[in-house]
Amino acid sequence: MGVVSLFRVAPEGTITSPKGFQAGGLHCGLKKTSRNDLGVIVCEVPAVAAAVYTTNVFQAAPLKVTRESIASGGRRLRAVVVNSGNANACTGAQGEADAYAMRQAAAAAFGLGEHEVAVASTGVIGELLPMDRVHGGITGLPGAVSGSGEGAEQFCQAIMTTDLVKKEVCVKLAVDGREVTIAGAAKGSGMIHPNMATMLAFVTTDAAIEPQALQALLGDTTNVTFNMITVDGDTSTNDMLLTMASGLAGNEELSPKHADWDAFTAAFRHVCERLAMSIARDGEGATRLVEVKVSGAVTDASAAVIAKTIIGSSLVKSAVFGADANWGRIIAAVGRAGEPVNPDTVDIKLGDIVVLSASRPVSFDEEEALAYLKGDTIAITVDLHNGNGQATAWGCDLTYDYVRINAAYRT
Amino acid sequence: MGVVSLFRVAPEGTITSPKGFQAGGLHCGLKKTSRNDLGVIVCEVPAVAAAVYTTNVFQAAPLKVTRESIASGGRRLRAVVVNSGNANACTGAQGEADAYAMRQAAAAAFGLGEHEVAVASTGVIGELLPMDRVHGGITGLPGAVSGSGEGAEQFCQAIMTTDLVKKEVCVKLAVDGREVTIAGAAKGSGMIHPNMATMLAFVTTDAAIEPQALQALLGDTTNVTFNMITVDGDTSTNDMLLTMASGLAGNEELSPKHADWDAFTAAFRHVCERLAMSIARDGEGATRLVEVKVSGAVTDASAAVIAKTIIGSSLVKSAVFGADANWGRIIAAVGRAGEPVNPDTVDIKLGDIVVLSASRPVSFDEEEALAYLKGDTIAITVDLHNGNGQATAWGCDLTYDYVRINAAYRT
Repeated sequence: MGVVSLFRVAPEGTITSPKGFQAGGLHCGLKKTSRNDLGVIVCEVPAVAAAVYTTNVFQAAPLKVTRESIASGGRRLRAVVVNSGNANACTGAQGEADAYAMRQAAAAAFGLGEHEVAVASTGVIGELLPMDRVHGGITGLPGAVSGSGEGAEQFCQAIMTTDLVKKEVCVKLAVDGREVTIAGAAKGSGMIHPNMATMLAFVTTDAAIEPQALQALLGDTTNVTFNMITVDGDTSTNDMLLTMASGLAGNEELSPKHADWDAFTAAFRHVCERLAMSIARDGEGATRLVEVKVSGAVTDASAAVIAKTIIGSSLVKSAVFGADANWGRIIAAVGRAGEPVNPDTVDIKLGDIVVLSASRPVSFDEEEALAYLKGDTIAITVDLHNGNGQATAWGCDLTYDYVRINAAYRT
Repeated sequence: MGVVSLFRVAPEGTITSPKGFQAGGLHCGLKKTSRNDLGVIVCEVPAVAAAVYTTNVFQAAPLKVTRESIASGGRRLRAVVVNSGNANACTGAQGEADAYAMRQAAAAAFGLGEHEVAVASTGVIGELLPMDRVHGGITGLPGAVSGSGEGAEQFCQAIMTTDLVKKEVCVKLAVDGREVTIAGAAKGSGMIHPNMATMLAFVTTDAAIEPQALQALLGDTTNVTFNMITVDGDTSTNDMLLTMASGLAGNEELSPKHADWDAFTAAFRHVCERLAMSIARDGEGATRLVEVKVSGAVTDASAAVIAKTIIGSSLVKSAVFGADANWGRIIAAVGRAGEPVNPDTVDIKLGDIVVLSASRPVSFDEEEALAYLKGDTIAITVDLHNGNGQATAWGCDLTYDYVRINAAYRT
């Protein structure tokens, strides 16, 4: 990103680095293992909040509760309570009652109003939450939270399911000369695991920001980050991205009119982009991160459709796993995306290796291509020479392990 | 199908069973093995012809030539010449010239007009056809054709690429009291293999039929048969379905006004449906045929989108491979299809086993489900209770072998 100089990455930072936030996690018995399965982020002041939710028709109960909290609490939240091991999805009226009860218990435990609390769940679909364990766990949460890295670590552990690595990022920038911190944590190693569901992401910041501006920024940023990753093309019933801004950095309230708005949006996008890329890299069974850049499309939206069609192709993903410079599968994906393409003007590169120019094969060094494709990050660049639209998408290769994990998942 | 009694399957029938047709195949050196790679179907009279082509933007040269033959020859053809081993796609002006040369050579060999000949290719993308071998092969084709089953067998061998089994079907019915035969042959074990490309299907019949009626019937039938199968969601640059009707059965010309039109369309659909199902069953690496029936959608088109979303889900396909009764993945696919769905009224069955009723989980016998899912054909039935639209789609499971085949395909 050309705007990196507007902010700096804080490698040691966590979701509790922004002023005002504490976090924690514990095991309450929702997972069969002894790993954490209940977590919380709390803010010492009402934080400006914004969220985006799965577009799946079957939205899990916690999403409804969170939506209601944000709407009725004047777009402010003090806490979000999250469980893994059970998605509370396809659970009917009882599931909805359970999500409300979870919110109520967390509000009581932290001395907050119910509408100051959001709820998120991830895990098995179609089973009721064992509410005695949830209640027991929530009672212990106030004693488990801290503003240290340890609290953030315990929270990150609590939201993981099939994730192999923790996904966390933190950046700092100056707004009105004050230091502002933005941090994020996420889970999700497929776009969906309906029986151990979901992508969840939480972004905290101590910036002061106008609520509508935060919601708009979150939507725009999601479109070019989280919505541009795909592991298997599926989307879950529980996906949620929630952001909370404490305002304790002491800057003038951010909005698009603010002089430092561009710096803040660039930093916010970096956080979301890195979380999204780490989810793609940790895709089920993945051995390689694949980045697809499409340029020369008629619009950015058209470029995005084409990029996602390429990254979503099982044939392209299998070829990447096999380190096979199979440009035929890439151009076939371009051609079936349903977007305007000039069939005679397409260039394709794998890394810096040109394999197709003006839609005609270019001789390339197979050994060099093989060496490149055996790396851990593969860049596929497609220039359509048909306009100014561009987009980048991220995904991963399709491997034996993907099949193994998903063939045997539920049992 | 409830209309089976309108026609009967002829198990020994081939594409040369309809009166007037001969076929043949030989090896001319396009495949590295000694398997056949060049085939032809010829008709002793000008046959009414109709075709549908891939919707991929990058259409291979032979499709252009075939389109032109059918259009300029008054929708009549005498022959179609097909090669495997080379797709003649992404080959530019030289590729186009080669496709025309292939047509010209076949026309000369059989003493036909150029516009009486169609051309189809499947194989590696981006390499020029070795035209000396093609010319040599075509010279031998007239001596290789016959109206016996042997000619049809050689043709079927000539069009196969990664196919494990031959795909052929034949039915007979009465039209005006005359015996009419419809037969088909197809190849394709993924919806696409861009480097060994394509679904090709050829349907012959001796019915007399009005040209416009045949083209309309072919389009309508394709929508509910070949367009309802998916192996990996990809479509190739070379897909083509061609039908030729000799008229030698001696019936009154068929059209929608004909008393036996419904019988003919049912028989024609059966041929296309069986070919499509056999392609799905022979999907790369597949161990099981999966049939998804969706009913209760707002329209048939909406049901089709939902059925194809389910059958195309890598998670559903992996679960079928693992014999895992994972209805959560099915409902998640329903929910992300982008079609109108009532989230509270969905029923799902695996075979006869109800697993979801009114969008709520139903207890079922896991052993019984496991036994069912270990069968070789899996039926997934989804009733949305939201209208009268219905559709059926076919696909296969996602297996280790799919990854193996496609990770190592080009090398």
